[in-house]
Amino acid sequence: MTDTDTVTLTLDEVAALSRAVLTRHGLAPDHVEAVTETIVAGERDECAAHGVYRLLVCINTLKTGKVSPDAQPVVDDVAPALVRVDAGGAFAQLAFKRGVPHLITKAKASGIAALALNNCVHFAALWPEIETVVAEGLVALAVTPSHAWVAPAGGRKPLFGTNPIAFGWPRPGPFPYVFDFATSAVARGEIELHRRAGKPIPEGWGVDGDGQPTTDAATALAGAMLTFGGHKGSALSTMVELIAGPLIGDMTSAESLAFDDGAGSSPYGGELIVAIDPAGFLGAAAADHIARAEAVFDGITGQGARLPSQRRYEGRVRSLASGVHIPRALYDDIRALLD
Amino acid sequence: MTDTDTVTLTLDEVAALSRAVLTRHGLAPDHVEAVTETIVAGERDECAAHGVYRLLVCINTLKTGKVSPDAQPVVDDVAPALVRVDAGGAFAQLAFKRGVPHLITKAKASGIAALALNNCVHFAALWPEIETVVAEGLVALAVTPSHAWVAPAGGRKPLFGTNPIAFGWPRPGPFPYVFDFATSAVARGEIELHRRAGKPIPEGWGVDGDGQPTTDAATALAGAMLTFGGHKGSALSTMVELIAGPLIGDMTSAESLAFDDGAGSSPYGGELIVAIDPAGFLGAAAADHIARAEAVFDGITGQGARLPSQRRYEGRVRSLASGVHIPRALYDDIRALLD
Repeated sequence: MTDTDTVTLTLDEVAALSRAVLTRHGLAPDHVEAVTETIVAGERDECAAHGVYRLLVCINTLKTGKVSPDAQPVVDDVAPALVRVDAGGAFAQLAFKRGVPHLITKAKASGIAALALNNCVHFAALWPEIETVVAEGLVALAVTPSHAWVAPAGGRKPLFGTNPIAFGWPRPGPFPYVFDFATSAVARGEIELHRRAGKPIPEGWGVDGDGQPTTDAATALAGAMLTFGGHKGSALSTMVELIAGPLIGDMTSAESLAFDDGAGSSPYGGELIVAIDPAGFLGAAAADHIARAEAVFDGITGQGARLPSQRRYEGRVRSLASGVHIPRALYDDIRALLD
Repeated sequence: MTDTDTVTLTLDEVAALSRAVLTRHGLAPDHVEAVTETIVAGERDECAAHGVYRLLVCINTLKTGKVSPDAQPVVDDVAPALVRVDAGGAFAQLAFKRGVPHLITKAKASGIAALALNNCVHFAALWPEIETVVAEGLVALAVTPSHAWVAPAGGRKPLFGTNPIAFGWPRPGPFPYVFDFATSAVARGEIELHRRAGKPIPEGWGVDGDGQPTTDAATALAGAMLTFGGHKGSALSTMVELIAGPLIGDMTSAESLAFDDGAGSSPYGGELIVAIDPAGFLGAAAADHIARAEAVFDGITGQGARLPSQRRYEGRVRSLASGVHIPRALYDDIRALLD
């Protein structure tokens, strides 16, 4: 790609672009800041699908009227180790920001705590939230349903969302151990890309309306996606439906898709974040055991295998040093949102 | 199989057999009771690998001297929502029994709580413990490392255990939603059975010492097993190593295997059990949302897919009605332990 095919921006310029676009489309200032932090984090880490591209997704959802542009999150301190935040139908980011100080305080006081976000619109990856909690020295787990696109193992009809599971563990230095993956075999966008390119999809990504394996992208999109890992991935996806749905009084992926009602908006519903304080179990010895955990990571990288967020962190270093490179066509599409 | 090939026992007779064998080999009475409950549960649910067969495994471990026959668990109330139980090198069952009332009390008081078992020998599945917690109306998650037999995705050397993840959710009626699976592609015993039978194993179960895929069972056992679900299963297995190892001040699977030092005993180390009280998030509305979750299960079974514990529950009904059927050769091997 030549220089003329991309636009190079500093992270401050990315943030300014995000603020301008979101503000232009009526998002309230505190929501603009919270969403912008997530957009900048995605672009900074070279996650193209979670960077400025997501501005298009956000604006699309705003245009459907399926997201509140200005609802103020309401924090409800429901139990010594639990806190709920009602996002009031707005994007999840501000609700998370308002809830996370409570989560951290409770986890440090009780040893373990959970934060439920309710009634929010989800368009982002979970790892920025995981990193926020882990930066406090806590271990973190986060899950959320999405839209019902994925069939259970042995089934044929969409029931589960792509239902990501994200986890983080504090490490010495700036880069924690973090993973964040969909429990679907692949992201729905990946199948869309194959459909646009007219390319077959590998077996295991989806089934047709009769539950038969298909390698045709359009057939899989009209039928159902599959989970990763067969019946085990299907069980994990079920768990996500339950603990970030009914457990916190919020929608399942099927209910989220029904709520969307064909509008094409981002998933709507809840999210559960659990935080555990190593010092709660171990007191002053926690630091020694966190250091001892490094042997696990050394055991992975020492045999040439990769850690889950390694590529993101490499991208982060590059972006902080020399900015980010956005495809010009995408940049132009985003700039057009300012007209 | 003809009647002469099996021995039919009532569950009381299974319990009496288990008590006799364990007592004969020096296990202290309260440990005998706790281990027997687990053995009976496995046989009752027609999990052949976790029923009376496990008596052979227990006695083998007792003979290695790698398990304490009589250590008394020590409960340590470390934080408002955390409790640790030091098993003192004995089997995990009694430590769990001593710790679980504290876990339940703390989960109901705080909304979420965690129980860490330390320094225990593990030979059993996790679902009996999950069912105990879920019977109190709580949602439960349990994980434990094992021996380092499994390579990380992209690697070739054993680092992880088979690292099971178990989860439970309360349902109306006697049968909760429970899953309990190894994060390895299959149980190690499954590969052993293929080796004994001289049968090839499917690709994806293991690699040779150079990390190359193999369909030879002996080569995989000498090389490394693989996780289910590629890099996602590998990430989950890493999480289990961390949260049921260093987080609770206990061994990783590599450390457990080193501790075994070739003796062939069961894995040694910790276990983490997390419990969440739906009433903590939802108060009096919890029952309505637990009922609403039934739509997820109906969505699975309604399209002909199975729930994870369905086969176990069907076996349970049969066993409670008409006893269990134990292969005569196995029964004779167990009876021989009484000589």
